[in-house]
Order: sequence, then C-alpha cells, then structure tokens
Amino acid sequence: MSTPTWNNRGFTAPFTATGTSALVPPPPWHYAGWLFNVAFSFDAARALPLVPPAAGRPVGRGCVHFADWQACTDGHELLDPILAQYRETIVVLELERPDGSRCMYCPAIWVDQDISLMRGLLQGWPKKMGSTWLTRSLPLDHPAAAPLRAGSRLGAALAVKDRRLIEAQATLRGEAGRPLGFLAMPTVGAVGWADLRRPEAMPEPCLVRPDIRDKVQSAWHAADAQLRIHPHPGEDIACLGEIEVSDAAAGWVGITVAGAVDAGG
Amino acid sequence: MSTPTWNNRGFTAPFTATGTSALVPPPPWHYAGWLFNVAFSFDAARALPLVPPAAGRPVGRGCVHFADWQACTDGHELLDPILAQYRETIVVLELERPDGSRCMYCPAIWVDQDISLMRGLLQGWPKKMGSTWLTRSLPLDHPAAAPLRAGSRLGAALAVKDRRLIEAQATLRGEAGRPLGFLAMPTVGAVGWADLRRPEAMPEPCLVRPDIRDKVQSAWHAADAQLRIHPHPGEDIACLGEIEVSDAAAGWVGITVAGAVDAGG
Amino acid sequence: MSTPTWNNRGFTAPFTATGTSALVPPPPWHYAGWLFNVAFSFDAARALPLVPPAAGRPVGRGCVHFADWQACTDGHELLDPILAQYRETIVVLELERPDGSRCMYCPAIWVDQDISLMRGLLQGWPKKMGSTWLTRSLPLDHPAAAPLRAGSRLGAALAVKDRRLIEAQATLRGEAGRPLGFLAMPTVGAVGWADLRRPEAMPEPCLVRPDIRDKVQSAWHAADAQLRIHPHPGEDIACLGEIEVSDAAAGWVGITVAGAVDAGG
Amino acid sequence: MSTPTWNNRGFTAPFTATGTSALVPPPPWHYAGWLFNVAFSFDAARALPLVPPAAGRPVGRGCVHFADWQACTDGHELLDPILAQYRETIVVLELERPDGSRCMYCPAIWVDQDISLMRGLLQGWPKKMGSTWLTRSLPLDHPAAAPLRAGSRLGAALAVKDRRLIEAQATLRGEAGRPLGFLAMPTVGAVGWADLRRPEAMPEPCLVRPDIRDKVQSAWHAADAQLRIHPHPGEDIACLGEIEVSDAAAGWVGITVAGAVDAGG
Repeated sequence: MSTPTWNNRGFTAPFTATGTSALVPPPPWHYAGWLFNVAFSFDAARALPLVPPAAGRPVGRGCVHFADWQACTDGHELLDPILAQYRETIVVLELERPDGSRCMYCPAIWVDQDISLMRGLLQGWPKKMGSTWLTRSLPLDHPAAAPLRAGSRLGAALAVKDRRLIEAQATLRGEAGRPLGFLAMPTVGAVGWADLRRPEAMPEPCLVRPDIRDKVQSAWHAADAQLRIHPHPGEDIACLGEIEVSDAAAGWVGITVAGAVDAGG
Repeated sequence: MSTPTWNNRGFTAPFTATGTSALVPPPPWHYAGWLFNVAFSFDAARALPLVPPAAGRPVGRGCVHFADWQACTDGHELLDPILAQYRETIVVLELERPDGSRCMYCPAIWVDQDISLMRGLLQGWPKKMGSTWLTRSLPLDHPAAAPLRAGSRLGAALAVKDRRLIEAQATLRGEAGRPLGFLAMPTVGAVGWADLRRPEAMPEPCLVRPDIRDKVQSAWHAADAQLRIHPHPGEDIACLGEIEVSDAAAGWVGITVAGAVDAGG
Repeated sequence: MSTPTWNNRGFTAPFTATGTSALVPPPPWHYAGWLFNVAFSFDAARALPLVPPAAGRPVGRGCVHFADWQACTDGHELLDPILAQYRETIVVLELERPDGSRCMYCPAIWVDQDISLMRGLLQGWPKKMGSTWLTRSLPLDHPAAAPLRAGSRLGAALAVKDRRLIEAQATLRGEAGRPLGFLAMPTVGAVGWADLRRPEAMPEPCLVRPDIRDKVQSAWHAADAQLRIHPHPGEDIACLGEIEVSDAAAGWVGITVAGAVDAGG
Repeated sequence: MSTPTWNNRGFTAPFTATGTSALVPPPPWHYAGWLFNVAFSFDAARALPLVPPAAGRPVGRGCVHFADWQACTDGHELLDPILAQYRETIVVLELERPDGSRCMYCPAIWVDQDISLMRGLLQGWPKKMGSTWLTRSLPLDHPAAAPLRAGSRLGAALAVKDRRLIEAQATLRGEAGRPLGFLAMPTVGAVGWADLRRPEAMPEPCLVRPDIRDKVQSAWHAADAQLRIHPHPGEDIACLGEIEVSDAAAGWVGITVAGAVDAGG
C-alpha cells in the first residue's frame, strides 16, 4: 500500500498541499508606492549596536522612508486591495562594507499588514507592526490636495504599540529631488530564525541582498524637512542620538523582487 | 462678585472654553480624494423604505462611491495626516424632488475615522464605521501601479462589523469618463438627533443640502465594472435587490463645504 | 391616490422605515464590564475651561476609568460580540452643583466602537475615538493572570490619534476597595449638536442625567496606583496640571440606561 | 586594533546588540486566557491536504478555540497591556501519529498582534492576522454579563481580510464541561522558513511539540453550540466540508511555554 503523496505547496505557513492558505506566495513580488524620504546624518558610533559588523560599518548617514504601498504577485491582489495595500516606515543606515563598497542596512521597519511583514522578514527587512500615516500629493489645485509644487506641505508619522516614534514634516521646494536611502544604494538585510528547541540561543542571522528588478521611479520632488525620533521603551532606534536632516524628497517608485542573493557575512 | 464667563468654543463635543478638544472644528472643510464610482440601476420601488418622501421619490438609479480622502481646515491636518486621511464607501440614490427637480440622497455610508463620521452626520451623510479598501492608480508603468490606461484593473471593497457588504471590480477603458453620483447632482441629506429624554420617540430628521464651493475635478477615467451588495444583518442596503451597473469612472476630486442650507421637507 | 406612509424607525442615522440600519437602537441599553478606576485630586481652578458653569463648579477631584465593556439591548449582540464589546477611557470631574449637591461631569472620553460613541453622545458623554488597553484579572493562579489578590499588578493606557494620552499602573492591595468616580455619584452630561445652517454658531449644550437602573457591582478591589496625563495637541485634559492619585480600585459593574432626564442648566 | 565585539541579543528580528527591539524575547512565555472551545467531527479524508503525513493521519475530529489571551515574560507586559493582550482563533485536528499515539495538529490560526504571530510561528502554530471577537462571561447577574450559568448565551466570530470565516454561538448548559482540542492532547506543529535565495523551493517544515509547563485550568463550563466555517478565497479550512459539533465548553486556562522539542517527521 502506497503512502499518500503530500507535497507542501505553501511558501510560508500554513504549509498545505493546496498552497491556498500560505500567507505569502513565492516571488516575483511587485511593489508600487508613494514615498516620502528624509535623509539624515548622525554620530556613526551610536549605530554600532544596530548593525552586525559582518554587514559593514555605519558611516553616520541614514534615511527614513514613509511609504504607502500597493503590492501584488499575479495581479489578483489589485482586485481585492486589502491584499495589496499597506503603509510602512523604514529606517536604513549607510554602511561601508568590508570590501570598501557602500550599501544600506535596515535596522528597523514597521508595517501594518501581515503579508508584508512576512515578505519583509524573508528579505532581511526586520518588520514589526506599526501605524504609519503620510500625506499624499494629489493632482488637484485644492487646499487639501498637497499638489506637487513649491510650498505644499506634507506630514508623516509612525506609532508603535500606541506610542509616537517617528514624525516628519516637509515643505516642497518646487525643485527636482534625488533618490535617497534604499532608492539610491543596494540594501543588505539580516535574516534569521530562532529555534525553540534551543531557546537559550540567539539566532546567527545571515546577510542577503534582495534581487530587485524592473525598478521605475517617477521624478523625485525635493523638500525641506524636519525629522524627530522619540524615545520608546520597545525600540532602540532613538539610540542614534541627535540627527540632522540632510535632504528630503517625495515621489513614486515601482520595484519587483525576484528573490535574494547571499551578501557575505 | 461676577459669575465666571464661560463660552463654549467647541463646535462638537466635548464642549470646552478652549475648543481644543472638539472632535470637529467649524467649516470650511476642505476635501480632496481619489474616487472610484460605480453607477447602477434598480427597481425604484425597493428603495422606498430608505428615503423620506419629503426628500423625493427614488427613480431607480444610484451610485456607489469608494473614496480615499484627505481633508483639512487650516491645513495643520496635512502635517499630522492621521487627522486628515480616511476612506469611505458612499451609496447615493437619485430622487425626483417634490418640485420636479433631481437630487441625490444618501441612505448609507461608512467611514473609518471619527472626525469624518461626525462631520458627515452634521451634513446629513448618515455615517457609521466601516472598512473600505480601493486600488489606487499610480503614475508609474509597473504591474502594481494600476496606471490610468486601458486595461488597468481596480478593485474596491467595504466591510461593516467584519462582514463584506459591497465589492466592486473594474477595468479601465482608456476613455474619458463622466462625473457620477454625488459628483453630478446636488445631494440632500437627513439630519436628526435622538433625544434620550424621550427615548420612545424616533427623531424627525430635517433635510439639508451641503453648501459646496471650490469644486475641482480631474479628468474622469471610464471603466467597465462589476458591483455586488451582499446581505448583512445590520444593513438594509441589500433591499435594493438586483442592481445593474450602468457606468463607472475613477479620478480625483476636491471640494470645500462651507455650511448647509435647508432643503425643504 | 395616497402618499406612501413612511415612518422613520431609526433612532439614530441612517433613518429608514425598517430601522435595521440605525447605528443605535432605542434604550434600554445594558452594560457590563471590567473597570479599573483611579481617583485623583488637582487644582480645581484649572478645570474651569472644561466645565459649563451651569453644571456646577469643579471641586478639585476627579477619576479616570479604564473600562472593558460588553453591552446589549435584547441580547442578540452577545451572539455576535463585535456588536457588544468595546473599551474606553473615561474622565469625570466632581462638581458642586448650583443647588449645593454633588455630581460628576465628563469632560473627556474615548472609545473604540461607533455604536458606543453615538450612544454616549446622546447621554452627554462626549465620546471620540481612542485606543484603550487594560489588564484583566483572570480567576487563575498563573503569572499572566493578574488574579485578584495582594501584589497582582495591572496596567492601562489610552492613545488618541496614535499618541499616548493617559497611562496608569497599579498593584492590588488585597483589601476591599470603594466605588469611585461615576460609580459613586450621579453624572451630568452636556448634549449639543452643531447646526451647519449656522456654521458660525457654537451649540449651546443642554445638561442631562442618564436614567440608570439595575446597577450591580462586584466587590471592588483596592489598589495603589500611578496615573499620568500627557500633553496632546488635540486634547485639553492635560490642562488639569499636576494630579495626585487619592484612591484606586478594580472590579466589575453592570448598569442599564433607560433614557435621560433634564439636569438643569 | 580589535574588531568591535558585537553579539546579537535579539531572539527575533530586528537583531541588535541591545535586544531591546526584538519583537519576541526568549521563553519562558506565560499565557492566561478565556477560551471558548467547540469540538467537531468531519470526513477525515478531507483533511489530508492540510496535514503533513509525517505528523500523522487525521481521524475526523477537530476543535475550534476562540481565545482572549493575556501573555507575558517577566511581567512588564501586564503593566502596558498592549504588549500582553490579543485575541485569536485556533483550529486543531486530531491525528493518529505514526507510532499509534494521538496528538493535535494546527493547520490554521489567526491572531491580532504581531508579538503573538511570531511566537506562534516559532512553535509551529501557523499564525496569520485575523479579527476574533468572543463574548466574555463576567461574574455579575446582569443581562450583558453572560454569567456562568445555564442559559447564558455566548458568541464568537473570526474575520480574515475583512471576510467572516468562522462563527459560533453557544448556550451554557450549567454543567461541568471537559477540556477539548489542544487542552486535551499534546499538539504538534510544523515550523519552516522559506529561503529567498531559492525562491522556487517550498520549505520542508520540521515537526515540533511545544514544551508546556505550569498548566492551570479553571473548571470548564459545558455548552450547546453551533459552528460554521464559510468559504474564503485565501483559506482552505472550508475544505473540511460538513462539520458536526460534538461538544463545547468555555473557561479559563493558563500555560507556560519553555521551548519546544522535536516531534519526529
């Protein structure tokens, strides 16, 4: 008598033979969104606790991205957009890699949908849940539209477990801006999974670089911005100390992630 | 000795002498948003339970609007956008008024922010809480962007108390569309407040028409659409019976509400 | 030919001939919940902006109630508990009424369900949306159960628009406690509705006292507590200045509201 | 010159040298909650797609648990209960293991907090986000309290991505009940992590059994119950087909998880 042949078709839990229930299907994953990016500088030494040395050394520059995303695989998510849309706040820090090159590394990121949380963990984006709000720029000449022109004002805020953690405000300059943060440099992430069979051991994360394809960017719109990171009992991002805004820009970007590659470490 | 002079400066509760805590400040209220509108026809007689005869007689046409709004008063809300942004689903029905003119009337609407809920009740939009999702069209050529061109697909859905109530899906036709529903006709609303000192009496609502100014519309983008209204134990909108989609369009609109005027009744 | 006879059967909006869609049905409304109450004293003069003089004069005492409620009318809500359950944070201030008697008055309250929000506004509880969390005491001897005995620790917190506003922490004393705040004294509320046809006028609220029946209380469990009210741009409750905790207790209470009566003013 | 010594102190992401930001600290994890459990039978063959054969063969019995939890590590979470409390819906299926013994296996579970989601994945509870509501029994004689006595009625419901998936209603019998589902038998879970460096490969989950200690149960209260599982485009739990309720009970339970052990496979 033959054993039943059961093949797991779930890319993530739950693991079933249909694959229907899996929280996340395999890539490619397509993302398109409105982003408000604030670049900043800080005392590089203060970031040491946040970055595995195998990833590189902090150079004292970083970026906060507030993002309003729409994501899909085969497109069915756009027809039931609770599956597609989410907002998140991303912090990336610039590193000098052991080989002298530069990359970004993400020590903290918060999102509001489970699908995105899991997709992120697989890429080395260490996602937790958080509540992100960011002003959108609408193509209208109206007081509530924040259109893309000099003087329009934008705001953004992140709360984690009902506490404000990061806030930013900006005024568009009416000039072209630049891609900042993870939009300007490859990003390396740390992936690791605790094993409850050895509950006293912390995981040794491995470093990966998402394999990004089909990146399309709108024009970026430069802004003058303020940025504040508040202390929070469950977050160590405020350890960066005083931060100084160096640049800011808003715009749209689309990317596709096809997988990931090893990134040393 | 003089009595303390205390003036309520709250437009809505809580009523305090500072006005700081009031949920809603006085108008003008500015709104700008992305809307996906689906016009439909139905058996007019079935709408009779939903419409006060003083407002007019249903003619068998209506519209569902899925909206992703940004609203403000003096603009400070755009700097802390949890105060500005919300999503809602609006149902309007076309009426022949007693004087023979036509208007829209809103028998049902659901929103996800308290500020908007109260602002709506004051205008005769009978808002309750609900969860609305709608695909956005982003100005990018990317699989997740649903750009404004023929073939792009959009979806929208409303859930009330954790049950799906209304769903729509559309394909853009790549042609100009028309303003539909409340974008095409004045809207009359019923405002009324129960008085707990007479708990056995139902309020007798009065009819008002919001005083709308500074309306700006982007081009509307025509779509082929499907629309479903599911039965729900706490909602009588499914009493409309079979509905047939007659038109659909997506785009941006900005309006300003300065107050309201009597609308007979 | 006769006009259709249409009777509004909605106690609150939407107003329909079925009454099915109304957010709130008429009373009686039954409430049962777990409450954590922290009584405090403060400089009475600082509360003057928060209290209509017709209600009375603040005496410098108040109470914060964190509540985890279950409410129903005919009981059907308990079979679909998204209709029954909500959490809220209530601030009440003790007043000396013009006739020399004492009452409580509520200048601020935040809840997480629309049904409760509307029911509260009708009673003069000036509800807005907020996120309340409070530790529950479970009848188990377990580290996560916070059982009702000396040394068990409880916490509670309120966030409004993603900002922490009120926080409390307590240790049970293992002694009987007392009813505090609105559990100890009648409560007067201000009810008022802005009229958009006169958008420049603030409403003149009237004072009512909910008609409470069938009040049942469990034993109250005394606690030592800390309480903090943080500044918040949209809330003037921090105007109370320094507050000093005078008593605290946790327990269960059930009440039924049958309507309201005039309370002078 | 020495390399900085950096030790990851994060049990889960983000991985930092402080450990402050980690979503989940190492066990022991203490849980105490109110549970409403509905046992059911079904055609065993229909569960084959949901269960890895290495875990065992479905026998045609299962249980849905609706749970209102409070969880902590060193107890600080009880002082800031947004860190401690969550609700979830758990489905477990009884298996005959390869060695002839019996266990439960969880093919589907939904929770409303990220901390619990990650803690669950590590134990082989395949958690996704969902919205669970369940009536609580309060120690009061009041219409809204659903006290623990014959005739009290309870309800529970789960929605996933704004669609109702599971609903139950019950009437307490006023008799002692039994521990059901995972309360009556050891539970085996499948743990696995996709590797984006091999995006075409589904993970091969391993089987573990959580190491549960310090289990305390209140008396269980028997109930007559109805249970419905609705079709859902993203969930394959409705593949169980017709289900028949065999038993139901409500009560409180506390458990502590210290780690996990291999469970064959």
